[in-house]
Amino acid sequence: MLIRAMLFSLTAVLAVTFSATAAARETYQFTLAETWGPNTPILGETTRRMAAMVERMSAGRLQIRIDSANKHKAPFGIFNMVKAGRYDMGHTASYYYKGLIPNAMYFTTVPFGMIAPEQYAWFYFGDGMELMKKVYRPHGLLAFPGGNTGNQMGGWFREEINSLEDLQGLKMRTPGFAGEVMAEVGVAVTNIPPGDLYTALERGTIDALEWVGPALDFQMGFHQIAKHYYSGWQEPAAEVQFLVNEKSWSRLPEDLKEILRVAMRTAAYDMYAQSMHLSGEAWAKMKDNYPDVSHQTFPPAVIDALRAATEKLLAEAAASDELASDIINSQRSYLQQIRQWTNISDKAYLNSISTATGD
Amino acid sequence: MLIRAMLFSLTAVLAVTFSATAAARETYQFTLAETWGPNTPILGETTRRMAAMVERMSAGRLQIRIDSANKHKAPFGIFNMVKAGRYDMGHTASYYYKGLIPNAMYFTTVPFGMIAPEQYAWFYFGDGMELMKKVYRPHGLLAFPGGNTGNQMGGWFREEINSLEDLQGLKMRTPGFAGEVMAEVGVAVTNIPPGDLYTALERGTIDALEWVGPALDFQMGFHQIAKHYYSGWQEPAAEVQFLVNEKSWSRLPEDLKEILRVAMRTAAYDMYAQSMHLSGEAWAKMKDNYPDVSHQTFPPAVIDALRAATEKLLAEAAASDELASDIINSQRSYLQQIRQWTNISDKAYLNSISTATGD
Repeated sequence: MLIRAMLFSLTAVLAVTFSATAAARETYQFTLAETWGPNTPILGETTRRMAAMVERMSAGRLQIRIDSANKHKAPFGIFNMVKAGRYDMGHTASYYYKGLIPNAMYFTTVPFGMIAPEQYAWFYFGDGMELMKKVYRPHGLLAFPGGNTGNQMGGWFREEINSLEDLQGLKMRTPGFAGEVMAEVGVAVTNIPPGDLYTALERGTIDALEWVGPALDFQMGFHQIAKHYYSGWQEPAAEVQFLVNEKSWSRLPEDLKEILRVAMRTAAYDMYAQSMHLSGEAWAKMKDNYPDVSHQTFPPAVIDALRAATEKLLAEAAASDELASDIINSQRSYLQQIRQWTNISDKAYLNSISTATGD
Repeated sequence: MLIRAMLFSLTAVLAVTFSATAAARETYQFTLAETWGPNTPILGETTRRMAAMVERMSAGRLQIRIDSANKHKAPFGIFNMVKAGRYDMGHTASYYYKGLIPNAMYFTTVPFGMIAPEQYAWFYFGDGMELMKKVYRPHGLLAFPGGNTGNQMGGWFREEINSLEDLQGLKMRTPGFAGEVMAEVGVAVTNIPPGDLYTALERGTIDALEWVGPALDFQMGFHQIAKHYYSGWQEPAAEVQFLVNEKSWSRLPEDLKEILRVAMRTAAYDMYAQSMHLSGEAWAKMKDNYPDVSHQTFPPAVIDALRAATEKLLAEAAASDELASDIINSQRSYLQQIRQWTNISDKAYLNSISTATGD
């Protein structure tokens, strides 16, 4: 009897104690939908690096299952799915949702805007995070920088662009806001699914296209057809985003919230470093294997016209919406200040070396 | 009897279970010595941000006490103190220990070397981390990037520098490797404690000095005396370091190791973003309040000479030590590749805007 009683009490006490421990060490399962297909370099590596950091830092208490586009079938539906709570979080680019939330666009990149180090300074030490919150909060979403591609190239052109006239009627694939700017200066802008781009360029359905930069362009093969590779103006620092459903977020204890926040922040910065790395590698390979590919910059008159068109469209957006105006003005005044610094530091340094040696 | 037995068993079981829980939730106290004085902007904020992230992510299980230079009295003794285990970790710049471990120098910055985004790519996606490990491991230390100041300015000069001749015999405060390079081209290099610099410049004991950049230069007041502010060449991306004693590190459970690693990484990247932010702010303020301060760049002949002197000293270092040779060659070949990318992306973009608008 004594032994049975002791065994009983032991079992009861163990049950109580273990359940208290289990509460403190509860495991959370998050789901993440990404815009990208499975095994997408750079972008897909970013979500996986983030999830791995979270799992290791939380000793397995927060696990994140990642669904790529082949699974959820809605690459541009991330905003809606996370908003509806079908996924706890997503990895996508804010400017894909221009139609649903026009003000989200500015948090990816703006033509003639900031380069990546300037833009991170604006996000984290200027007003960027606060303004992004104002745009996403009404949708029950938290948004965080999710990684930068670095400065994107202006595109692949079959013929050289020597003047504004050369752009008139030119058939070019360039989506989003940059497409609107291009249309303003006379380009016949078309959108074509990524899988059909190579053929469209080869057959002359389009004369030019803009994709990302060497790291992601190389595998697309455009350099085999269009030999003029132009430096960009339209996406000087394309930042993708992590979106998190606010209700999912609020279920997490404070330590796991901080673990998730810091892992997203590190993964984003790391993506920028990896983009730099792979762009350097791919551009070197392209120059070695395709010496007939030439790097070019648009003539000043073209840059002037594109910039004027950008300013016109931004002024229209600012006039139509108060929050758009706040964001555009914040970015403009921040850029005016920080660019002066960039000009006397990195830019002056890079130019002084070139002047002295010609490289 | 039954009740007493039950109470006894309950007490015993609780004791066992609680001690198991306590082991899993053990609290660790780390000490960190930083080179910087108390409340040092940017650098001191970096260690505090790192410690705060660690504390929140670990729910208080890892706590880091930070001692500034006023406490430990050995701003340039961080390497020795962490090596000896007097502190678990430190925050300092690798190149301060040139005398003790000459090869540590290259992990801060190298004249005419990489700018910050290039250097982070080298650390994390090139051979940087591996090479830094080879330098620090024999001392029982782990080393991690600890934050970047961004491109440092070339210094404050009382007179304009129009030729190499203007540098002959010029009395200038510029420490470290850059000082050796300056001496090679004829500058009379001196070192003067920071607290005496303003007076030395005012009284003409020195004609010029190099400090950091607008964010940290402004409070020193040099712009009130020397009106020519030159863009830099000597520290294009000064990265400070976190050093961690390997024995202290190995005491931590795996989750806390990862929490510490990720917090250091994020704090380092954040320091670069904050440096950008504050440099922009300070440079704007300086131009507004001191319109007679002029920004200048060294003439090509001076840049050429400084670069040749840098190459000579690096070649000597590479010839004298195998690991030095590995590091110098890794940095050189990485820079050659990635700079081509920087040139067609950020540099081309920044220049195309200036060409079009003159700003």
